[in-house]
Amino acid sequence: MKERFSGTILHPPEGSAKRPTMGEIGLNNFAPYLMNRVVARYNANLSEELKAVGMTTVKVRTLAILSITPSATINELSVFAVTEQSTMSRTLDSLEEQGYIRRTPRADDMRIRDVTITEEGRAAFEAFWPAMYDSFLQMFQGIEEEEYKQFISILHRILQNIRKHEF
Amino acid sequence: MKERFSGTILHPPEGSAKRPTMGEIGLNNFAPYLMNRVVARYNANLSEELKAVGMTTVKVRTLAILSITPSATINELSVFAVTEQSTMSRTLDSLEEQGYIRRTPRADDMRIRDVTITEEGRAAFEAFWPAMYDSFLQMFQGIEEEEYKQFISILHRILQNIRKHEF
Repeated sequence: MKERFSGTILHPPEGSAKRPTMGEIGLNNFAPYLMNRVVARYNANLSEELKAVGMTTVKVRTLAILSITPSATINELSVFAVTEQSTMSRTLDSLEEQGYIRRTPRADDMRIRDVTITEEGRAAFEAFWPAMYDSFLQMFQGIEEEEYKQFISILHRILQNIRKHEF
Repeated sequence: MKERFSGTILHPPEGSAKRPTMGEIGLNNFAPYLMNRVVARYNANLSEELKAVGMTTVKVRTLAILSITPSATINELSVFAVTEQSTMSRTLDSLEEQGYIRRTPRADDMRIRDVTITEEGRAAFEAFWPAMYDSFLQMFQGIEEEEYKQFISILHRILQNIRKHEF
């Protein structure tokens, strides 16, 4: 028989249809709470390091995405960079001014503009990447590769469960 | 010998001191990116449901915390509710107006005010909790208790690695 995780978090106690309370689960066993704390801390740390080089988290996320894809639309970029379209629009204006990206109207539909990274943008991202990768390593210090693999697999399933976009 | 996770994410390839690039890791294997997407989606969904009952995510987090602790300071609440002190201050003003919380100056240090939940606040949180718990269940649909346990354990270790507060 499958081991039950304390019987009260993902499933109500055997034979009960009652939901456990927040107090019964405990904040420290409530994954959305822990993920919010981790993400807020990670973003704050990253943002602090970026400020020193005149960048923002949204800018570096945008460059990260564009560095590994031939081109993307503003709609795709706002989903992948986890930001509002309006913020992404301002971010792209600023990145274009910095010479880090280029926007090209699509030949068959001029309303759509394909965003690509420039060589300068690639260099700017590559210059920041070591700091980003090292803070990622620090985050997962003491965590084995096998555990990391499972962690990623669970995150993929969660995203599948809650996402509203097709990509 | 320990199995290596593809050799390129948490550790450089054997015998190499070079960092893998973002492209080599891939966005879908980069946990900070996946966590940002999950948290943003979760918060947006929650926020939408809360709007209907005149609440915000910060308000409901504050009530959740106060529902399981005898009292907390504004400093503790802003860490646990993952928000700026200034936002927390405004949130407490509004929750007090709604009759959901109470602030009491501490007898031995009048500068510190202990925040406690009222019966009305507890009832408001309990009324929303079923929706919150059910969206939590949906989030972890198809994930086994044993996996959830490991997921929580990894989140605790990450938080330990990156946090700046003592609580």
